Amino acid sequence: MSSEELGSEIVRKHNISCPDCFKKEIKKIRVNDLEDFCFRVFTKLGVSQADAKITSEILVMGDVRGVFSHGVARLGRYVKGLEDGIIDPKAKFIIEEEYLSTAKINAKNSLGQVVGIKAMKMAIEKAKNTGVGIITVNNSNHYGIAGYYALMAEAENMIGLSTTNTSPLIVPTNSKQTLFGTNPISFSAPVKDKKPFLLDMATSVIPRGKIEVAERNNESMPIGWAVDERGLNTDNPAVVLENLLFRKDGGILPLGGREELFGGHKGYGLAFMVDILSGVLSGAYFGLDVDKDKCLAPGENKKAPNVGHFFMAIDISKFMSVNDFKDRMANLTDMVKNLKPAVDQDEVFYPGEKSAARTDYHKVYGIPIKSNVYKNLIEIAKKCQVEPPTVIE
Amino acid sequence: MSSEELGSEIVRKHNISCPDCFKKEIKKIRVNDLEDFCFRVFTKLGVSQADAKITSEILVMGDVRGVFSHGVARLGRYVKGLEDGIIDPKAKFIIEEEYLSTAKINAKNSLGQVVGIKAMKMAIEKAKNTGVGIITVNNSNHYGIAGYYALMAEAENMIGLSTTNTSPLIVPTNSKQTLFGTNPISFSAPVKDKKPFLLDMATSVIPRGKIEVAERNNESMPIGWAVDERGLNTDNPAVVLENLLFRKDGGILPLGGREELFGGHKGYGLAFMVDILSGVLSGAYFGLDVDKDKCLAPGENKKAPNVGHFFMAIDISKFMSVNDFKDRMANLTDMVKNLKPAVDQDEVFYPGEKSAARTDYHKVYGIPIKSNVYKNLIEIAKKCQVEPPTVIE
Repeated sequence: MSSEELGSEIVRKHNISCPDCFKKEIKKIRVNDLEDFCFRVFTKLGVSQADAKITSEILVMGDVRGVFSHGVARLGRYVKGLEDGIIDPKAKFIIEEEYLSTAKINAKNSLGQVVGIKAMKMAIEKAKNTGVGIITVNNSNHYGIAGYYALMAEAENMIGLSTTNTSPLIVPTNSKQTLFGTNPISFSAPVKDKKPFLLDMATSVIPRGKIEVAERNNESMPIGWAVDERGLNTDNPAVVLENLLFRKDGGILPLGGREELFGGHKGYGLAFMVDILSGVLSGAYFGLDVDKDKCLAPGENKKAPNVGHFFMAIDISKFMSVNDFKDRMANLTDMVKNLKPAVDQDEVFYPGEKSAARTDYHKVYGIPIKSNVYKNLIEIAKKCQVEPPTVIE
Repeated sequence: MSSEELGSEIVRKHNISCPDCFKKEIKKIRVNDLEDFCFRVFTKLGVSQADAKITSEILVMGDVRGVFSHGVARLGRYVKGLEDGIIDPKAKFIIEEEYLSTAKINAKNSLGQVVGIKAMKMAIEKAKNTGVGIITVNNSNHYGIAGYYALMAEAENMIGLSTTNTSPLIVPTNSKQTLFGTNPISFSAPVKDKKPFLLDMATSVIPRGKIEVAERNNESMPIGWAVDERGLNTDNPAVVLENLLFRKDGGILPLGGREELFGGHKGYGLAFMVDILSGVLSGAYFGLDVDKDKCLAPGENKKAPNVGHFFMAIDISKFMSVNDFKDRMANLTDMVKNLKPAVDQDEVFYPGEKSAARTDYHKVYGIPIKSNVYKNLIEIAKKCQVEPPTVIE
């Protein structure tokens, strides 16, 4: 069975192309058409062809891998950032510090993807020389899915890790107020003759999008996703979303939920760790200050979000032959596939396996775009006076 | 208020010295007396004075920080390992690979602590030169609390990270069989005029010890801690412990619990990431093979556990002045302390704050030792013909 067929089977069997979308009217757009559309928008807004190409590719990869919250659903925010001058399409970032294995970059408000690619490439080059490279970035913007950068290292037979801080959304253990964003951790490693290992996770228990879905469907949420303005568990998605919108107390819980009973302090600790690496060490904003411009009332001066990122590449060949490492990874993923499933399940997956299946599926059958996201893309096309993307069905 | 007084206040108010112990008869032993006792045991079993000193210090630090499962409660296993020849007290570990920022060490079955200290020191030295140092270790044994090594880097004004793999206990998402150990992640960073940030967490939702406590107290467990031999949620601690003991199916859940609803796949992914760094990259055993000797039936040849560790130090001064970094960390921890607590809580803590309070408290008032652990120490004293530790009360 080819990789595409296998991917299709997993996607259909487990209904993981876009579970929410299947309930709604969707449009399907081919990967290339969606990338080309983003490219037209970005170049129209002053981004160079090379930068527009890479930014479009990374943005659309969010959709391709099934992380729809980080795909073209965000294009409108990029457009607004470029129009408002918060994102500088011509930014020339500078290296503030550089040593044999490390560097600190000031992105000068560039697109997060443009500096992100540059930073991970630097990390890989340094790793080739010394065994490991670490690059931090300050004064940046949203950089798309963190997993893209980890996979860049994987493609060079390295272990890749990337983290970024994001605007406050997570309520720390014992608190009723948010402090950290969903602060994702991505980590990738190559596997012999198989899809790469890829962990690409928010340190929150769920993304905000899941709460929005519950609200749209008029469903209650499971207890353990979010707390209300008192800091107590709630199953009401509307309350949580309104509180977040108006910057009242309450918010989303860290991985592990409220209190320490199920390890909520661990998820909180991981979100904190990500902010130390991405925000504190990089010289960017951290904690409550990340993306603070959103807090400014209309009429106040816009302030750049000053998001920070962290990139690391570890050169596997400095520890053992790449072939041996990949064999060992294949052996470990085989152990996973040979585990007996729980009686109500039929298969055990390793991290990255499902999103790789989604990728193969979407490359063949197109990306499902929700009707509200599609409308938004059409509006952007009109506003920027570019051709909208071609729709398959 | 002095650090000790503040520590005492936090410990008493939140009852965090040893929550379980407070219900049981306990002995209290001063930190130095407990370290000296371990030192006598280790030197009697052929460990050099220098190695015995450091191993005792790290082992007792488990108790000092309140991670009692990784303290002297494990001394019996160390004694057995040394007696059986699985741990080699005279091991001369070798560096198998070395580059500017990385090295791979073969511990040759030494005490985990002895090689652990050496490895983190090497990581720190490399970081001073290039900005970051990464050392992996194979053919090792249990190395005590992971946090000790992260704090070594913190004490040198660096960011420290250490992980280790451990024998299978965690059931991956969708599985009914265990694959990974509690595979801890420790991460530390310095804070101006405050206790260090220290995240020292198992990637399981809880440690095995909590299930043992529930069983001893005849209590049911919360749903979300463990699964039975069918891979389904269970609240029966006796079932889980028996299944683990006899290597039947079932086990402890990853952080996030069963299924993806609360992010169980993330905790599973983190445990997997730890095994890639500690096991796959280091050349040690990984997955099901870690500490496999426990699986051998009596009479079969004993096999070394071949545990693997990962150590990383990042030199903060290569990114900004250490003073600036510590100020920024103080600012971030201030944000934490200024968060409004949930209505049923009265204080928000940053990771490492509570265990530092426990440390101060235990240094003044002694370490609480459960009666069964104390009995075990007395047995070890008799067997090794050394003086038992002096008891305060």
